[in-house]
Amino acid sequence: MDFMSALRAAWRERDSLLCVGLDPDPTRLPPSLAGRPRAIFEFCRGIVDATADLVCAFKPQIAYFAACRAEDQLEALIEHIHARHPGIPVILDAKRGDIGSTASRYAEEAFARYQADAVTVNPYMGQDSVEPYLAWEGKGVILLCRTSNPGGGDLQNLDLGDGEKLYERVARLASGAWNANGNCALVVGATFPEELARVRALVGELPLLVPGIGAQGGDIATTVSAGQTGDGLGLMLNSSRAILYAGEGEGKCWDGDFAAAARQAALDTRAAINACRVSVPVFREK
Amino acid sequence: MDFMSALRAAWRERDSLLCVGLDPDPTRLPPSLAGRPRAIFEFCRGIVDATADLVCAFKPQIAYFAACRAEDQLEALIEHIHARHPGIPVILDAKRGDIGSTASRYAEEAFARYQADAVTVNPYMGQDSVEPYLAWEGKGVILLCRTSNPGGGDLQNLDLGDGEKLYERVARLASGAWNANGNCALVVGATFPEELARVRALVGELPLLVPGIGAQGGDIATTVSAGQTGDGLGLMLNSSRAILYAGEGEGKCWDGDFAAAARQAALDTRAAINACRVSVPVFREK
Repeated sequence: MDFMSALRAAWRERDSLLCVGLDPDPTRLPPSLAGRPRAIFEFCRGIVDATADLVCAFKPQIAYFAACRAEDQLEALIEHIHARHPGIPVILDAKRGDIGSTASRYAEEAFARYQADAVTVNPYMGQDSVEPYLAWEGKGVILLCRTSNPGGGDLQNLDLGDGEKLYERVARLASGAWNANGNCALVVGATFPEELARVRALVGELPLLVPGIGAQGGDIATTVSAGQTGDGLGLMLNSSRAILYAGEGEGKCWDGDFAAAARQAALDTRAAINACRVSVPVFREK
Repeated sequence: MDFMSALRAAWRERDSLLCVGLDPDPTRLPPSLAGRPRAIFEFCRGIVDATADLVCAFKPQIAYFAACRAEDQLEALIEHIHARHPGIPVILDAKRGDIGSTASRYAEEAFARYQADAVTVNPYMGQDSVEPYLAWEGKGVILLCRTSNPGGGDLQNLDLGDGEKLYERVARLASGAWNANGNCALVVGATFPEELARVRALVGELPLLVPGIGAQGGDIATTVSAGQTGDGLGLMLNSSRAILYAGEGEGKCWDGDFAAAARQAALDTRAAINACRVSVPVFREK
């Protein structure tokens, strides 16, 4: 199934806008996995199996695998998701960006090697640097627009003279000229809800991947209100650390129960999100 | 040795502004290497050993390795460069860019895992996304500024209202506020010499990595004239395909002699560059 259809199906079937980010920090693995050769894979597999019925997407972050030579574990993880939980789209968070001939290699890395359904891409190098990803039929291309980090505005909020901001221009391009195949989406951080609302106003029903809820502090109610589409959809609200390490810390049973703790955190987050979706009742009646 | 010192030493000792880009296309390897398990490594090693006395840097492009699961060959290649040709800086062309916690992992990937001396980084996410790389003492951080591809201007040439372009803002930030540790450099394409001259005027003696000569068609004389510093230095002029595949094609002895052909192409390119360096005679008298 193509990314956009899979995403829409997952939103509805799982009644969820929650995307679980798989950013496995090797220094924060449960002690029971310590020293195991495929500890990163086993940790992420535990999280995936415990939350798959609660999410609209999984988003592994490639840097966490690449920094410790664990590309093979990332391959195995995505293969596992497709085999065990078919239909859930996998977004490879890689934020690639390069000229055409090299971008083709990055697209091959994401879509052929890792079998991702979508990849995050940096728009700074312009349309021809994005086209090699867009050319993969059915794959999603999620362009950075307004990122959740404190310095995100250093360039993205620059005024283009007529009151338009750089991130607004990216939003217009990604929903217009660059979106000939209908496979574009955008990254917009939850930490800047006014800008999220502005992007939503510019891009119609384009899906938005929204990092920043959970550990980064973005407020769920404000985020959902600012970013949802008229039918209470349109968002992939990413939480990574708050789900992955939910069982960590004092008085909690981290070791055996990391997956159960993650499941509970995902249940709570999904519920908190759904409580804010204005059109959820209408949707649920369907 | 730190990146900036190594680069300056390589410029002078090898009398060269040429950077050889290592972008090994698996479909264009010499037939003699076909089917060999470490063909990519062997090909690049042949190029490196044939050109090391002629270059100021080597620049492996990670996508070409990642697309075909050859990260181990990239590790081996950089290890080989450091062992056999000590002092030549290695730039990992990865164009990474992410929020702080993830950027730290990418920095670890580039500097700890691959032992690169510098890495290319995308500035779109702002200062705090660049800081994890800048924090590695002695390592170089080469920020995308005005890239060589046709669509490079889609965002980079946007006018910020007062006549300043986005790429000019990046140039000012990278040579000013972001350069507290003195380890920044910039990527500026040879295909836009007027903008290269503009960047040089903005950034003083900051080193510029300049792709676009060779296969991409940037003119050497114009590029050197626009980008060199007062002492005929300041540039890493990258050529990848024109060097790597110099022996390819009709009537040429590709198979046995790919390294010799690459050496001849590197000699010719270095000579063409040096012929255009206005202050070369002065420099050579030193």
